[in-house]
Amino acid sequence: MKASPGLARYLPCIEWLRAYDARTLIDDLLAAVIVTIMLVPQSLAYALLAGVPAEVGLYASILPLVLYTVFGSSRTLAVGPVAVASLMTASSIGSLGLTTQAEYLQAAMLLAMLSGLFLLVLGILRFGFMANFLSHPVVSGFITASGIIIALGQVRHILGINADGDNIPELFSTLFEHLGDVNGATLGVGLFTLAFLAAARIWLKAGLSALGVPAFAAGIVTKAAPVVAVVITIIWAGLAGLGDQGVALVGMIPAGLPSLVMPPWDTEMVRELIVPAILISVIGYVESVSVGKTLAAKRRQKVNQDQELIGLGAANIASAVSGGFPVTGGFSRSVVNFDAGAQTPAAGFFTAIGIAIATMTLTGYLALLPKATLAATIIVAVLGLVDVSILKKTWVYSRHDFIAVAATIGVTLLAGVEIGVSTGVLASLVLHLYKTSRPHIAEVGEIKGTKHFRNVKRHKVETSPDILQLRIDESLYFANASYIEEEIFRNLGERKQLRHVILMCTAVNEIDISALEVLESINEILAEQGIGFHLSEVKGPVMDHLEGTHFLKKLNGQVFLSHYQAVQTLLLEDTLLSL
Amino acid sequence: MKASPGLARYLPCIEWLRAYDARTLIDDLLAAVIVTIMLVPQSLAYALLAGVPAEVGLYASILPLVLYTVFGSSRTLAVGPVAVASLMTASSIGSLGLTTQAEYLQAAMLLAMLSGLFLLVLGILRFGFMANFLSHPVVSGFITASGIIIALGQVRHILGINADGDNIPELFSTLFEHLGDVNGATLGVGLFTLAFLAAARIWLKAGLSALGVPAFAAGIVTKAAPVVAVVITIIWAGLAGLGDQGVALVGMIPAGLPSLVMPPWDTEMVRELIVPAILISVIGYVESVSVGKTLAAKRRQKVNQDQELIGLGAANIASAVSGGFPVTGGFSRSVVNFDAGAQTPAAGFFTAIGIAIATMTLTGYLALLPKATLAATIIVAVLGLVDVSILKKTWVYSRHDFIAVAATIGVTLLAGVEIGVSTGVLASLVLHLYKTSRPHIAEVGEIKGTKHFRNVKRHKVETSPDILQLRIDESLYFANASYIEEEIFRNLGERKQLRHVILMCTAVNEIDISALEVLESINEILAEQGIGFHLSEVKGPVMDHLEGTHFLKKLNGQVFLSHYQAVQTLLLEDTLLSL
Repeated sequence: MKASPGLARYLPCIEWLRAYDARTLIDDLLAAVIVTIMLVPQSLAYALLAGVPAEVGLYASILPLVLYTVFGSSRTLAVGPVAVASLMTASSIGSLGLTTQAEYLQAAMLLAMLSGLFLLVLGILRFGFMANFLSHPVVSGFITASGIIIALGQVRHILGINADGDNIPELFSTLFEHLGDVNGATLGVGLFTLAFLAAARIWLKAGLSALGVPAFAAGIVTKAAPVVAVVITIIWAGLAGLGDQGVALVGMIPAGLPSLVMPPWDTEMVRELIVPAILISVIGYVESVSVGKTLAAKRRQKVNQDQELIGLGAANIASAVSGGFPVTGGFSRSVVNFDAGAQTPAAGFFTAIGIAIATMTLTGYLALLPKATLAATIIVAVLGLVDVSILKKTWVYSRHDFIAVAATIGVTLLAGVEIGVSTGVLASLVLHLYKTSRPHIAEVGEIKGTKHFRNVKRHKVETSPDILQLRIDESLYFANASYIEEEIFRNLGERKQLRHVILMCTAVNEIDISALEVLESINEILAEQGIGFHLSEVKGPVMDHLEGTHFLKKLNGQVFLSHYQAVQTLLLEDTLLSL
Repeated sequence: MKASPGLARYLPCIEWLRAYDARTLIDDLLAAVIVTIMLVPQSLAYALLAGVPAEVGLYASILPLVLYTVFGSSRTLAVGPVAVASLMTASSIGSLGLTTQAEYLQAAMLLAMLSGLFLLVLGILRFGFMANFLSHPVVSGFITASGIIIALGQVRHILGINADGDNIPELFSTLFEHLGDVNGATLGVGLFTLAFLAAARIWLKAGLSALGVPAFAAGIVTKAAPVVAVVITIIWAGLAGLGDQGVALVGMIPAGLPSLVMPPWDTEMVRELIVPAILISVIGYVESVSVGKTLAAKRRQKVNQDQELIGLGAANIASAVSGGFPVTGGFSRSVVNFDAGAQTPAAGFFTAIGIAIATMTLTGYLALLPKATLAATIIVAVLGLVDVSILKKTWVYSRHDFIAVAATIGVTLLAGVEIGVSTGVLASLVLHLYKTSRPHIAEVGEIKGTKHFRNVKRHKVETSPDILQLRIDESLYFANASYIEEEIFRNLGERKQLRHVILMCTAVNEIDISALEVLESINEILAEQGIGFHLSEVKGPVMDHLEGTHFLKKLNGQVFLSHYQAVQTLLLEDTLLSL
């Protein structure tokens, strides 16, 4: 990919529009049709999950997709309402104590606006690197826990009872409380849809493949199963009059496109929604970039992290002004888009047109759609997100990673998504700092005749009683400076013959000013005892900083380029002195 | 120092009491007399600074010292009210909006209790290492800024006007507002004391030394100057009837020792004071440990960080139940204690007795003491804390350290101590993470004939067009995993001949599971292109984790003990293949 000059840097669409031709158009159109079919029921379902009217899900799948087409840097990412962001929307607005549906909807629009502005500002500041501060296992753990909460939260729609909560204890207690109110007809529709979708998932793909349908096409047809379930249950509801049997239906949806309107800027509400907006943005962004990168890598394309912030920011602002709620790039729909052959973000633009047509023409039929059908769709979709294997993986590989993941999953399940994700971020940062604050320090010696120095405890090496050779396996900075000082003096221990201490700095990538002060004090104390203090293998960037410091001027010893050279020089000096 | 078994681990006093003799007793008694003389005016002054009645400063210098004698691990640290903690006390209680002096005092006691409990719990959990998370320059910057705020805050007492605030803008605006109310007599007392203390500081020590008085003794006499100023201005106030001329006096102080009482446990107030208590504890602890360590190093003694938490925790709880406010180890009084020859913490116990006697006998005379005298004492004392050279030092050494210090000083001056210190801690952590999230990656080659490999940009080295040798100067973890992936592929660049990539892992101290996933994906992509992927110089602890992972099983290459061996082996293989 050649560098995009000027405007194209901020409008990635200029790049791909240049090479746009009829063949690309056909590929994109086909993908758009398939994604539209998949996205209609998903949009309705995630609106239900977020607690907003069903049509809001459709609105959030029109204008945001257009904006992402213009500003997004991923070729195949499909943007729209997704499960985790919808749950987080419900959770954060639910805690505001709003009474009317209109207020709730305005809060959802405001949340999308704040989230969009936050992403846009980060993008303009080129803060894409911030995404890296979320560790991958923590994100996986969070999504797994969210999936469980979402699935359990939908059980009430399957049972046709009232229950609420954004964490497991609340959900269980309210479910049990209302267990007497189960509606048989609702349960019937719910269980049928669950069974239908599960069967499609398990057998349809394999069956189609057996019939000679290519695997990717079979996969796409399977993803269309929810649409079939929607059609079947709408007909069922119409014929059997399910509405009169107490089955909750989606109800009348206003036909036509959303009107453009600014969400009301209520300062008090902004204050309460700013933290949730940041959390939703960050989680949505990290997931989105990770999906975008995975797909891009398959076609040797690239995703620009900063441009993605701008693309997703623009999409969320678009969602806010067109009556929608927070959106981001979704995993399963992006994979469908990719597998269906989408070549450029234009596929997203065509999908938006498809959803717009559906919004204008199909809403009349959706009035009869049972909510239980949508709930079953959600349950089957999110159970795919649940992956507890990350717990086993981290347990085997590293206890620190395991603690961070287990804390994230545990806290998310028990106390909800916002505290859960904050716990995850904090736990991984604190554990990282804790690790670097107590670094591994190895005494080293030469593996005979190799000029290569390794840990005396792990390898058969040669050492000299005159020289203590310590390799510090960490940068020296404020969090470990005094620990390292203590460890060095502990290693000095009872060595009566000691003449020199060499710090081997192969793993020292930084010496900050706190650590520099500690080195000065070590140098002073060693000098008083007549012991030389030397450094070896100091890296260029570290040496640049040390150059000209008081420490280097007062150093009671030398800085050697290689550790081998240090040992040879000091041994020779000692031999000469003892002659 | 031999290991202290059993009880002595928690009661360091058992250790030194064993060896206590008459000579040590005399040394400790002498030091105690000198510290007592210095501590009486300081205690009164810091009480004034904290906003509590003068006698509270004395109370905070009795029982806390006894408890620190029993539980503290530093031999010479002198505990009591200090400037920065007093300022933080005033700032945090001031924001509660309390109306009566009694409520204010109870809040101060509660603050000491919370602070003591927090320190005690950290000590029992052996969390002494937490102190290391505060970078030294940040603490210096914070103390400098606090010193400026304290000095400026005392100006109102010198001028005899009302003014208030815990940051520079507030202080300036209220000072200017009341500038018309300046009291001449107060100003006279204030300026006299300032001039007297400044003169003592500048000439007394030099003069005494010139007269043959030993330097350490001259230093101690100089430190007693505030007592002389107190005596002079009390007499002046009595003779001239300063109280009637509008000079604010300390007023009647209840004689006798404080009675023991639990601070009232008001849940609402606890909630509001918990964060300030934590900040005061942390700052006080870090300062105290740093003073303790410096003094201990001079006599080859040791300070146990965890035990210090327990010692200071116990001292603060003692302060809370005896009508005091937060205390910690003070710099100047500890130096006086040390220079005066204190050998054991018993000196602190004797100081407590000295202060108790003063509380019972001297309070009658203190009624006539002008507050301006105390204010001048504080100004002269805290100006010694102000040290802006840290800004220059960090600017020269490292811009990242400079940013952290400048942010701390700036925010503390403009927005007050609590936000200031939080900013400092956050800034240093975020800057550290930022640095490690964009590590230095060097292409390396052999310095001819040395088996030693260095950066191609800094040294004349030999490389092979077949082999890309990259040294990553950082541990691989979630915050830099994707940056490193991008950099590796950027370095691959346009090398058509490339057959092998070797990652030289001398500086890699950890590979977490996020980074492991990235390595797997790099390995896959390189394998597809027929490029070998190798690691060299992997450290023992890192290798322990990698052993048995999927990554190592699928690795399209080898792990070499030394980088030299890696290059030799791969070059030989290629030569054999091309035959």
